[in-house]
Amino acid sequence: MNAAAATLGVGFVGCGRIADLQCLGYLEHPAAEIVAVCDVDTGRARRRAEAWGGARVYAELDALLADPRVDAVEILTPHHLHAEQAAAALRAGKHVSLQKPPTRDVAELDLLVATAARSGRTLRVFENFMYYPPHRKARELIDAGAIGTPLSVRLKTAAGRLGDGWEVRPETQAWRLDTETCGGGATTFDHGYHCFHMGEFFVPAPVERVHAFVHWTELDARTKIDGPALISWRYAGEPPRLGSWEVVASLGMRVRSRYYVSDDRVEVHGSEGILWVNRCTGKLLDEPSVVLYRDGETRAWHDLATDWAESFRLGVRDFVDALREGRRPPQTVEAARRTLAFALAVQRSAAEGREVALSEIEA
Amino acid sequence: MNAAAATLGVGFVGCGRIADLQCLGYLEHPAAEIVAVCDVDTGRARRRAEAWGGARVYAELDALLADPRVDAVEILTPHHLHAEQAAAALRAGKHVSLQKPPTRDVAELDLLVATAARSGRTLRVFENFMYYPPHRKARELIDAGAIGTPLSVRLKTAAGRLGDGWEVRPETQAWRLDTETCGGGATTFDHGYHCFHMGEFFVPAPVERVHAFVHWTELDARTKIDGPALISWRYAGEPPRLGSWEVVASLGMRVRSRYYVSDDRVEVHGSEGILWVNRCTGKLLDEPSVVLYRDGETRAWHDLATDWAESFRLGVRDFVDALREGRRPPQTVEAARRTLAFALAVQRSAAEGREVALSEIEA
Amino acid sequence: MNAAAATLGVGFVGCGRIADLQCLGYLEHPAAEIVAVCDVDTGRARRRAEAWGGARVYAELDALLADPRVDAVEILTPHHLHAEQAAAALRAGKHVSLQKPPTRDVAELDLLVATAARSGRTLRVFENFMYYPPHRKARELIDAGAIGTPLSVRLKTAAGRLGDGWEVRPETQAWRLDTETCGGGATTFDHGYHCFHMGEFFVPAPVERVHAFVHWTELDARTKIDGPALISWRYAGEPPRLGSWEVVASLGMRVRSRYYVSDDRVEVHGSEGILWVNRCTGKLLDEPSVVLYRDGETRAWHDLATDWAESFRLGVRDFVDALREGRRPPQTVEAARRTLAFALAVQRSAAEGREVALSEIEA
Amino acid sequence: MNAAAATLGVGFVGCGRIADLQCLGYLEHPAAEIVAVCDVDTGRARRRAEAWGGARVYAELDALLADPRVDAVEILTPHHLHAEQAAAALRAGKHVSLQKPPTRDVAELDLLVATAARSGRTLRVFENFMYYPPHRKARELIDAGAIGTPLSVRLKTAAGRLGDGWEVRPETQAWRLDTETCGGGATTFDHGYHCFHMGEFFVPAPVERVHAFVHWTELDARTKIDGPALISWRYAGEPPRLGSWEVVASLGMRVRSRYYVSDDRVEVHGSEGILWVNRCTGKLLDEPSVVLYRDGETRAWHDLATDWAESFRLGVRDFVDALREGRRPPQTVEAARRTLAFALAVQRSAAEGREVALSEIEA
Repeated sequence: MNAAAATLGVGFVGCGRIADLQCLGYLEHPAAEIVAVCDVDTGRARRRAEAWGGARVYAELDALLADPRVDAVEILTPHHLHAEQAAAALRAGKHVSLQKPPTRDVAELDLLVATAARSGRTLRVFENFMYYPPHRKARELIDAGAIGTPLSVRLKTAAGRLGDGWEVRPETQAWRLDTETCGGGATTFDHGYHCFHMGEFFVPAPVERVHAFVHWTELDARTKIDGPALISWRYAGEPPRLGSWEVVASLGMRVRSRYYVSDDRVEVHGSEGILWVNRCTGKLLDEPSVVLYRDGETRAWHDLATDWAESFRLGVRDFVDALREGRRPPQTVEAARRTLAFALAVQRSAAEGREVALSEIEA
Repeated sequence: MNAAAATLGVGFVGCGRIADLQCLGYLEHPAAEIVAVCDVDTGRARRRAEAWGGARVYAELDALLADPRVDAVEILTPHHLHAEQAAAALRAGKHVSLQKPPTRDVAELDLLVATAARSGRTLRVFENFMYYPPHRKARELIDAGAIGTPLSVRLKTAAGRLGDGWEVRPETQAWRLDTETCGGGATTFDHGYHCFHMGEFFVPAPVERVHAFVHWTELDARTKIDGPALISWRYAGEPPRLGSWEVVASLGMRVRSRYYVSDDRVEVHGSEGILWVNRCTGKLLDEPSVVLYRDGETRAWHDLATDWAESFRLGVRDFVDALREGRRPPQTVEAARRTLAFALAVQRSAAEGREVALSEIEA
Repeated sequence: MNAAAATLGVGFVGCGRIADLQCLGYLEHPAAEIVAVCDVDTGRARRRAEAWGGARVYAELDALLADPRVDAVEILTPHHLHAEQAAAALRAGKHVSLQKPPTRDVAELDLLVATAARSGRTLRVFENFMYYPPHRKARELIDAGAIGTPLSVRLKTAAGRLGDGWEVRPETQAWRLDTETCGGGATTFDHGYHCFHMGEFFVPAPVERVHAFVHWTELDARTKIDGPALISWRYAGEPPRLGSWEVVASLGMRVRSRYYVSDDRVEVHGSEGILWVNRCTGKLLDEPSVVLYRDGETRAWHDLATDWAESFRLGVRDFVDALREGRRPPQTVEAARRTLAFALAVQRSAAEGREVALSEIEA
Repeated sequence: MNAAAATLGVGFVGCGRIADLQCLGYLEHPAAEIVAVCDVDTGRARRRAEAWGGARVYAELDALLADPRVDAVEILTPHHLHAEQAAAALRAGKHVSLQKPPTRDVAELDLLVATAARSGRTLRVFENFMYYPPHRKARELIDAGAIGTPLSVRLKTAAGRLGDGWEVRPETQAWRLDTETCGGGATTFDHGYHCFHMGEFFVPAPVERVHAFVHWTELDARTKIDGPALISWRYAGEPPRLGSWEVVASLGMRVRSRYYVSDDRVEVHGSEGILWVNRCTGKLLDEPSVVLYRDGETRAWHDLATDWAESFRLGVRDFVDALREGRRPPQTVEAARRTLAFALAVQRSAAEGREVALSEIEA
């Protein structure tokens, strides 16, 4: 942000489906403005720019980066472009908010981190689940000792009947179903990144070893998707702590959602209690979003903001505020590197049918 | 049962803690009678015999087996004695109800099955979870198509603060904590047998591969117990199906129970719905024991018999009735062999830190 | 509607707070259009007209009624104006949707009904609770015999801390707090009309006798409001059936709401089951909106549309569709007359401290 | 209790159905013993005496009262006998625990209270609902300010299909269905006494006026029972507070119960929160017995003792302990007089179809 600027000028690089949510925090923030948009589909870029109040439209990233009104970029492109685009932005003196997963491998990320360090600009990896109000409430409770020492995290992603939520056009999904451009499975690498991050968010210990059962389901003659999947892991150190994430696709089941037709639920088990987060993304059941059990009592929260979009709003607001206040956003690149290694270890475990140590990936 | 006998005479072989529940079905059945008791602790045997209405007390198994009033034996001894005692009983012309796990390995079981075949008597392995009314209700719903095709089973055993439920004297637990006499871990082999059986009970497909993270926790200088643990498995065939069981010990958490201080919960995910069984053994939460989700609706059952003892009652009743009706009890030795192999594969996976195929064990 | 018109032209008479919701169904209906607006506050009328896509603004009702584009009027004015305005509209050949309560007394309504009969135009009284999807679901279940014969209805309105929901400007409430212009108490006559209608909606029998405890609470030196209140009633005929409605204001309690800061809950008890509707207006608890108990089971509906605005949308849509299809809307004036008499009997009971028969009012 | 006696000797006067529960607290108390039993049905008295460990059996009350081992009597006879029997016992120097309702009218009670005063012995009226653990928990929460100022109590008794709970022989019910021997309706006077007491238990203010809709249902040519019924009341003083109790008989509905086939639920509404007690007597739903709402959160208690018998146990224990400690039991005769007047006012209101002031009865 220019010293003189009262307002953070933001350039969107890529404006597919998720830009619908990523834009909200900028549009609502009094000290931010979306000033530039860049997309390979210039028609789409133009429609977005108009909807967002008249940002300039660029066909090329370099042109956008040359725009002095752009103080920071929001990168929402396919994963194989992340490393190069983010590095270019940093070199151009822009701050970068990079949609998770940050890169396809650790080496790409390390190069990017080095570039960021040289640039003096902020690179933050954006993972919205950590901003979802029920997740934050659960984390606060854990930090306050509500369940004693966290001992286990269990996540479950329940995907349902297509057509009940967001329409996502198949052609825009193609890159995500190609492991070359995605960096791994659309389910276990791309969506998995969120869940693995939650595994780290709720238990204050590094993950040490992982095991994955992943089935690749054929969608058509040329396309496969990595699900169902069941991932388990062990944290390092004492006390012994374990975690798991399962994703099941119930193609005949109604999952109420305004977004992706799936719902994510978390159970965190501690030495003295249990905590449940009963929704994220969709809304399978009408029930309190956070429930705590301890000492024969449950406490349940009925008025948290539970719309999934809220996590995007809060995550973007935090990025803008962190830049203005000169502090690091909470998602450090170090943390993102660990989550990336976790997600990559899962890919390897599934491919090789064996337990994988994160140290194999992180080295 | 003697042709002339209107009543099945039952001999209890071993009468430790679980005999408190195993006796109920016989005491209540109009066509059964506990006529003989045998235990290494003859004082205990005498107290049981008196409480059960005056059964004869034997210090030795052979003496009990020579008693012509004994038509069937209920074997509740440590696992390393199962094979030999059950074989002796069958050779003596007695029917046998053998507490799970049937034996310590597959070879022992195969010998026993051969003995049973030669004897013309009934050998049934007793696993009470399958008789627990909420489990039976869930199974009926699944069989009726309530969740479509079952795709995933998730079990969670939540152990709590000691002292809230049954008192189990340490000395009576010693054999269970010795893998030589137990056949595997007290948690993952002995209790695990129930959970692995549930994994098979709810999904009509053989288990193919398993992976286990098991931590051995030191109880004292010489004793360790196998928990926490996180087991995952893949079923054979199509559609792809997965299962997991986790056991967490929250030593500062209240788990209401009249029996072991732990509670078991199950989630079965199908192609069209989800089914939860919200308790077994203990009673963590006051909530319906069975809940079904489908088509935006939940159905919940509030008046099932949920006391854990009920599963023992029903299991014993079924054994007596099966003998009287000349039918096989539903727990065949073939099924018990599969569950045993599953439990043994888990032991091996944990020991070797790798996925194990059940075929390695079953061969 | 003119024979030639493809689109129903609607004129809004009065555009205070509730017009925010009443407009939605017209704005969204492909065959309706808000073509005219009339309000004593012409600034407000002008803002509405603009927001609604350019309706003409009238300072006087007569002028609006003279507009040939207006086929039907939506009357949302204070109650003392209803009878005269609705009659004028009918005489001008317009269909009328009249916000509940229709008039301040039965005599006013009878005159209006006679006017409607002469006009050949449709007069329907609009009461939105009957269109609220959870209420409709409950009614469908009752009609299908889900609880056997309905025996009792219990309603509870829980008002909460001001400021958590809609802002309602005091000056716009003044007429409602004056029994002369309102026709009765703001709580027990105006809001009460909804609840009394629900008492009739869920039990297919006329109400015979009512009793009311009503406390008039001073808001300031000149203003009082009729709450808390507890109304009970007996239905005519067999089997014996009873109903009650209580309204409690908990001024320190959080009641989550996007509208009025109160929540309405209903319990209908039948010969074979119980039905709960767990919200309306606000959303006190995150729980299923409709729950049915029968035969030891509960069924709960998690995906009904529960936003209060939905009841307005559906009610308006039904009015438009009924006019187009040449059928009577379900809220007949006969039904409205009964509900009005019910609400008036409550006023009298509270004033005189005695049971009141509806026949005293209806005569 | 004799000064020398370490143990309170108790004589049961009447041993019908409720004696099954009333005996428990005495049988379990280390400092109490049931030493004498008296009943018009001496066979029944003899069976009880034997089951209770060998109490002496008396055919006449006078003989029992002459037994020096009897320190206190438990009176469980039909209501028309209460006044005379209790007075005789007090005059004989016995303490008295008198099953509610204490007498059939206020005059009888006043005489009895005078007799008690002269005797120097303790007269306590036993009402078990106030000892039911969920009710006590709710009361503790209210006393601690959990819902702010209590503003409203709503009770609902849901009776269900006969045959699901206790068998109560018709002949033993005959006196209860005769208002002469009962003192009022079996429902609204006898059972009602509990519910009216709860109305007073949860709101710290005297009841001022009541209204009752009561339907008398014919059971056979000569017998009628007073239900369904809907009672409402207003408390005296400020802030304005209201209460209601409804009893509905759903003869085709399953109500799970080990006792009477009915379930009682309470809702207490305060200035800052709401409290629900979700069961008593029976167990309609598997849900937490006590739930508190405040500030957008619910708290629910899952491990309270909820078996109805517990209230009898605790009430008896408290009586024995109060005598031993020389303190008054919490149910004073003054409180019982108010509850009695409340119950009688309800009878009058129903009979005369009008609001009744408690002052009419209490005078």
